[in-house]
Amino acid sequence: MSEIAEKLLAGEQRALSRLITMLERGDPAAAEAMKAIDQHTGRAYTVGITGPPGAGKSTIVDQLTKLVRETGSKVSIIAVDPTSPFSGGAILGDRIRMQRHYLDPGVFIRSVATRGQTGGLPRIVKSMVRALDAAGSDLIIVETVGVGQTELGIISVADTVLVALNPESGDAIQTLKAGVMEIADVFVVNKADRDGANQMAAAITGMLHLAASRPEWSPPVVLTTANTGQGIEDLWVNIQSHREFQIANGSLDERRGRQRKGEFLEAVEEVLAQRLREKVKSDPDLSATLEKVAAKTTDPYSAALEYLGSGSFSSDWLNAR
Amino acid sequence: MSEIAEKLLAGEQRALSRLITMLERGDPAAAEAMKAIDQHTGRAYTVGITGPPGAGKSTIVDQLTKLVRETGSKVSIIAVDPTSPFSGGAILGDRIRMQRHYLDPGVFIRSVATRGQTGGLPRIVKSMVRALDAAGSDLIIVETVGVGQTELGIISVADTVLVALNPESGDAIQTLKAGVMEIADVFVVNKADRDGANQMAAAITGMLHLAASRPEWSPPVVLTTANTGQGIEDLWVNIQSHREFQIANGSLDERRGRQRKGEFLEAVEEVLAQRLREKVKSDPDLSATLEKVAAKTTDPYSAALEYLGSGSFSSDWLNAR
Repeated sequence: MSEIAEKLLAGEQRALSRLITMLERGDPAAAEAMKAIDQHTGRAYTVGITGPPGAGKSTIVDQLTKLVRETGSKVSIIAVDPTSPFSGGAILGDRIRMQRHYLDPGVFIRSVATRGQTGGLPRIVKSMVRALDAAGSDLIIVETVGVGQTELGIISVADTVLVALNPESGDAIQTLKAGVMEIADVFVVNKADRDGANQMAAAITGMLHLAASRPEWSPPVVLTTANTGQGIEDLWVNIQSHREFQIANGSLDERRGRQRKGEFLEAVEEVLAQRLREKVKSDPDLSATLEKVAAKTTDPYSAALEYLGSGSFSSDWLNAR
Repeated sequence: MSEIAEKLLAGEQRALSRLITMLERGDPAAAEAMKAIDQHTGRAYTVGITGPPGAGKSTIVDQLTKLVRETGSKVSIIAVDPTSPFSGGAILGDRIRMQRHYLDPGVFIRSVATRGQTGGLPRIVKSMVRALDAAGSDLIIVETVGVGQTELGIISVADTVLVALNPESGDAIQTLKAGVMEIADVFVVNKADRDGANQMAAAITGMLHLAASRPEWSPPVVLTTANTGQGIEDLWVNIQSHREFQIANGSLDERRGRQRKGEFLEAVEEVLAQRLREKVKSDPDLSATLEKVAAKTTDPYSAALEYLGSGSFSSDWLNAR
């Protein structure tokens, strides 16, 4: 076993940080370590939290962390930020609320940027979760910030998905569109002291009855005021209920298996894409094809189909490395 | 030549709309038509506009369209929206400002959702630009809304990239981070009637001098008040200067060639990913690998490398279809 994997499994915090840095850099030694620790994962529980900006996700995470730390459990937090060239300030501001946990050795906090990644959750987040799991975290919270597919991608890594909403952020029906209904295990209506919180909770419950897409588990709707901590215990009880439900009927293992399968397929695509980019530099046939495309001798899509059907593609380069 | 390609080249608006719908549905006949029209592209000029929410991009596009329409030129607008499960309203609101052009047959407006796409600009946008070009558009404006890689992806389709900023949206230095400097051909400081507009313009100019990453073309900084139309003519003059500059030194053809090469590589990746997903349903070897990954006999990434090196992958399926 690689030295870093051994140290990580022995609980050395520095080995964990080093492995994560290696993952971020795409160091091939990270893959070896990930292989070695894989058998030692599965003990931690992973909670994902998603929702629109302003729902108070970071504050909920902060309060959940505080609550769980009181029991002595080790908590890790992964914050997934979209890196817009035009933003940054607001997200950093959110993070400041987590400050009180930075000095607690029982809490590990790391941000991941989605820059350059595909639409879903960056694959590195999944590796990080496994590394944190193997290193002894009890609870791993993954928070997605921002917009688009990253938010729904939380389903690919979490055992329980929390969808946090703000009663002031618009009508509930708009909010529940586009796949959110399917991924939420627990709804959190935060800022419950504001107008409209009860109505929003009722609207969500109503929609859940109408949809009834998941006959066995009916996602609870929890009211919280994360600023004061109100409702956080109730939220934690509901997360644990969902965990126990999934353990009892075997769906937790199924879910994790599905996630691993998805990760395998992503990794295959990623490696293929990498090899293609390398091939661009070294393959004269591919270079010639590229020049033809640039010169409009052929259109890009037709050229792609042709290239994929040609001997120069399918023969050897896939295995090369 | 396919019937739809013929009709599109003859200027039939309905053929254009139909082709775009076919592209959206992934209809294989669309690829045939795209191949047929490829030789007939290159006449239109494509302007991309990006910038943070609130910079007034839609209003700038609206005013530019009005100005260019006065010359009789045909204008097409492609609005690229990120589909967040938690938003939608604000973006739709922006679009309402474009309303006055909806009844003008010389203006074609279409929205594209980025849902399920990779981090960059959806490949369909590039196909749409070529279809609009072949159908006789003179000016094609591509507007990206929202966050992340889609914004910088505008470089992969535009002949001239406008970066629109709002003097109230924060300090200029923060704004110019993360690749924006490299892709902007023209900066637009909109809402120039507000405090800080001149300072922002000066700050951008200062940074451009410092960076000096592009020795030949120095991106101008144009002040506009799009609400009133102030500065729009100046913006149009600067776009035309950039166009003439690129034609004079041959960099326009180079740029378009680079874009086509990038599109080819994207298409290769996309087709590989599609074939992989199809293979999951039919290949017993792949199914067995997936089950091993799910059962933790092997970790996802190692399994991916192993699968890509195995005979069952590299032999035949790439050519199958």
